[in-house]
Amino acid sequence: MTEKQLQPAKARRAQLRERLIDAAEAAVERGGLAALKAREIALGAGCALGAIYTAFEDLDELILCVNQRTLAQLEKALATGGADGDELRRLGAEYLAYARAEAPRWRALFEHRMPEKPLPEWYARDLDRLFGLLEAPLQRLLPEEPAEALRAKARTLFSAVHGIVLLGLEEKLQPTPASALDAELSAFIATFERGLR
Amino acid sequence: MTEKQLQPAKARRAQLRERLIDAAEAAVERGGLAALKAREIALGAGCALGAIYTAFEDLDELILCVNQRTLAQLEKALATGGADGDELRRLGAEYLAYARAEAPRWRALFEHRMPEKPLPEWYARDLDRLFGLLEAPLQRLLPEEPAEALRAKARTLFSAVHGIVLLGLEEKLQPTPASALDAELSAFIATFERGLR
Repeated sequence: MTEKQLQPAKARRAQLRERLIDAAEAAVERGGLAALKAREIALGAGCALGAIYTAFEDLDELILCVNQRTLAQLEKALATGGADGDELRRLGAEYLAYARAEAPRWRALFEHRMPEKPLPEWYARDLDRLFGLLEAPLQRLLPEEPAEALRAKARTLFSAVHGIVLLGLEEKLQPTPASALDAELSAFIATFERGLR
Repeated sequence: MTEKQLQPAKARRAQLRERLIDAAEAAVERGGLAALKAREIALGAGCALGAIYTAFEDLDELILCVNQRTLAQLEKALATGGADGDELRRLGAEYLAYARAEAPRWRALFEHRMPEKPLPEWYARDLDRLFGLLEAPLQRLLPEEPAEALRAKARTLFSAVHGIVLLGLEEKLQPTPASALDAELSAFIATFERGLR
């Protein structure tokens, strides 16, 4: 095949991938990972079921592509604020707001488990950029902290906030009105900040 | 029916419930909620499929009975230590150890969602007792704090620790060696304690 013939095949595959991600994204937005059915996605994208597996290595890759769009949305939601002293609390509040507004696709970020495979590099890079938003205010609080330790601290703080948002929104431990959850999360981050100083 | 005739029927139902909880517990221990199939549980308990629904209101009630046993295990694992200054860190470390050792049944505590129903009172009471373990050291740190605020703080701190354990064990955000997770969790709780003082 000549280069000229290859190009359209590549472009067609790229278009097919986009259509499949669109269809999968719509399903996840509606009902989370449980709503993601290969047959319906193929139908939505107007292709045969088997075409999914010519466009993607496996369903995991397709899910990660949807989750990558969610990461981009989340990053946009978090990256709007200024860099004042309440930056960590603002990030926490924005994270909670995003989880509330986009519950099914937010949950899909965490419900998906890669069986025996490390996260692909392109996905890990997007995650890194997201955590960078947390590292910046942490660095202002801990100017002496080495970069690797800051990286780890940002992920730990994210995980803690995530736990509060997750169990709070599900009301797993007790009935939790929205305003109480907002206040608890904010107080928690403020306490943590005081401890860092 | 006379009282005398009723008793054996009650006792038989109680025994059937125990056998069904045993069978469900074994399944959850092996593979979490995903391994819990009504047909296999009935087989394991030596009863007809329909008998599950004479012994329990629904599968949710059966799952909560298994989760109640997990809460009791967890409470036993957490309640072993003394009341020194590192009590919160010790509780965090024990929680992480339990989650590592009993991953499928620990996950089942959180994966199960009650559809549109509040948690039954007997389950909420066991949860309360578990959080009491956290409230005691928090109260020593915050002797002035009103009881309701302490209650909420204990649940928030639990949720934060849970998030760190959950995302750390799943290595969702980055590869996390066991020793790094131990150290991050401990440092996190120490920072939070400093912030409370």
